[in-house]
Amino acid sequence: MKPSHPDLPPFGREMTHLKRSVMRELIKIIARPGVVSLAGGLPANELLPVDEFRQCLDAVLRRDGPKALQYGPPHRPLQTWIADYMRSRGVACEPDQVFITNGAQQGLNLISRLFLDAGDAAVTEAITFTGVQQVTKGRGARVRTIPTDFRAGADMDALEAAFAAEPRPRLAVLIPDFHNPLGVSLSVERRERAAQLAATYGVPLIEDDPYSPLRFLGDPRPPIKAFDEAGFVFYLGSFSKMLAPAMRLGWIIAPRAVLPRLTVLRESFDLESSALIQRGVAEFALSGLLDEHLRRFNAANRERRDALLAALKEHLGDMAHWTQPEGGLFVWVTLPEGVDAWEMLPKAVERNIAFVPGAAFAVEGGHANTMRLNFSSVRPDQIPHAIAVLAEVIEEAMG
Amino acid sequence: MKPSHPDLPPFGREMTHLKRSVMRELIKIIARPGVVSLAGGLPANELLPVDEFRQCLDAVLRRDGPKALQYGPPHRPLQTWIADYMRSRGVACEPDQVFITNGAQQGLNLISRLFLDAGDAAVTEAITFTGVQQVTKGRGARVRTIPTDFRAGADMDALEAAFAAEPRPRLAVLIPDFHNPLGVSLSVERRERAAQLAATYGVPLIEDDPYSPLRFLGDPRPPIKAFDEAGFVFYLGSFSKMLAPAMRLGWIIAPRAVLPRLTVLRESFDLESSALIQRGVAEFALSGLLDEHLRRFNAANRERRDALLAALKEHLGDMAHWTQPEGGLFVWVTLPEGVDAWEMLPKAVERNIAFVPGAAFAVEGGHANTMRLNFSSVRPDQIPHAIAVLAEVIEEAMG
Repeated sequence: MKPSHPDLPPFGREMTHLKRSVMRELIKIIARPGVVSLAGGLPANELLPVDEFRQCLDAVLRRDGPKALQYGPPHRPLQTWIADYMRSRGVACEPDQVFITNGAQQGLNLISRLFLDAGDAAVTEAITFTGVQQVTKGRGARVRTIPTDFRAGADMDALEAAFAAEPRPRLAVLIPDFHNPLGVSLSVERRERAAQLAATYGVPLIEDDPYSPLRFLGDPRPPIKAFDEAGFVFYLGSFSKMLAPAMRLGWIIAPRAVLPRLTVLRESFDLESSALIQRGVAEFALSGLLDEHLRRFNAANRERRDALLAALKEHLGDMAHWTQPEGGLFVWVTLPEGVDAWEMLPKAVERNIAFVPGAAFAVEGGHANTMRLNFSSVRPDQIPHAIAVLAEVIEEAMG
Repeated sequence: MKPSHPDLPPFGREMTHLKRSVMRELIKIIARPGVVSLAGGLPANELLPVDEFRQCLDAVLRRDGPKALQYGPPHRPLQTWIADYMRSRGVACEPDQVFITNGAQQGLNLISRLFLDAGDAAVTEAITFTGVQQVTKGRGARVRTIPTDFRAGADMDALEAAFAAEPRPRLAVLIPDFHNPLGVSLSVERRERAAQLAATYGVPLIEDDPYSPLRFLGDPRPPIKAFDEAGFVFYLGSFSKMLAPAMRLGWIIAPRAVLPRLTVLRESFDLESSALIQRGVAEFALSGLLDEHLRRFNAANRERRDALLAALKEHLGDMAHWTQPEGGLFVWVTLPEGVDAWEMLPKAVERNIAFVPGAAFAVEGGHANTMRLNFSSVRPDQIPHAIAVLAEVIEEAMG
């Protein structure tokens, strides 16, 4: 026998760039009984369709029996429902183009692996969802960031400049509706231009869209994918917010040419999505329960958003500004320069209020004076007091 | 506007080595009404615990309500049940070491990504599950293969030679019980030696073990992980066979030191496993239904295996030999040299019998004269006729 190695070998190159999640650190800070959390990114417990979904699963297992517990191809009625839904939003697609995933995060990861290797150029918004950062910066890409304005979303001139620079980016990601964390939506004109730019510069563009079904104000907008005549846009949908997070179910509308490679890649990841969950979700959607749920859910979220905006106006009106989301889960608050939201957080948690410092979403750092506030998982009657306390913490931080 | 790129960019390096699944090709060949398929790798529909699991989900949603539909940490009662189960098999582990995955395939993929980059050396059995090939050869590793004998499993002298060669392998994979596709099990002595070799040569060793709960003959054997004092063995378990494939649920028992990186990596993949499925499976296991199911399931599989072995003896006794599994799903048949099972397959399918040519599992090719036969998904009364027909096809192929 040769001498023992005391340790496992060092991790591989694959693990070089992936950073520990700031959100996970945050959960530790704010996990304290009695905290009213504006830090979440989830539907409220009391708004989840527990009984309805229970009945759907029951119906599926009674009707489909072992088929619902077996291996199998993607569930065609679910693909058909999704294709119909996408067509109702202006996206030309067929059921066989609906690639079922375990949530939009899996879609981000799979598509990033199709095109992007460490060292390649990628483009994201400068402030974006941590999961987007994990599949670009976290995979060793050289990320070019573009600004997002609060009126009309990601800046298309900046996107064109980032696409035109050498080397050609091998991936871009935009969040079109009710942006996480900003709460803003991309204008229709910019959606059209984003699709054109992807085709003009030949850049695969991921449209990460878990939030559009959560619109409670204004007119629905067509996805970027609706303008994608050339086949450069990868649309990601999700049932995590529109139905429930534990579905762990989403979909990709991908250009048909990549589907075979996507299938092989996904097989090597985790084979396929649960036949049971797929059938349960199809039952929920096809029976009309999903539409009913979304009406109730969005109405409740609007009430919560209104309560939050009113409280912000009352307590922070003279020292901050914020976005005015027409849907989704989040409001983005900008405090005066010099205030550090990370420093404020423990003080807020001491007084039983939690939020996410906006810097957690800043790809290139900065933005210390910003916060993401979630309104969907807090009861409306808790919001005024929460914001009053938060205003006190901010005032103290400002001296 | 610059000139359009007509096409998406070429796929990245990540996609270079991943091959189209032979199994998927196979499914196309054998998808024909009336075919009795010995090609599967799944529990029989009629043996799946449909009503019992339906009642578990119903109980979980009535009792836990929104918690079962929400985001959440790994479900502790499930981790505790798994840790107890692993301890009953001789593996020292605590619930917090049980890393929940979406099936063993996800475990294979995640651990391969912790250590293995393209160009690195890896070690697998020369004949092994296609999913193992996807996460080694399919990721660009230089794979050293070792033979597996039908009496005692993977050859440990060959494993030592493969571990001792330069450069040091960064991953090895063994399938200890009721090997897919061979149906053989590693002897207890070799398990102990495998753990020692991993520690001695410092090689992370994946023990891919979806089948051990499917033992219907002989005494249970401790996993390789039971001998892993130094922390080099990654044990993979799965509920896909012992409960149902649509759970898409499994686990890793990993050395504690890697858990934080594994957590971040998995988050970037697909965040987490469904709280609903985790709770449903925990309910099924903790209520004793899993033990009951396994008794029935294994008894039925034994009957099917016995029918298969008897039919092989009757119809192929003078021209082939085969393994004698004490559990699991598969028997491996070796035909005379010169017979090509791929060539036989369409002729067998014409007569409504399907199997998997063994060459599909051969990492370095060859083994044209072998077949994997599944006994678990075929009714015992169908087996004698199926093998009689198969024997005719083989006799014709032999001229």
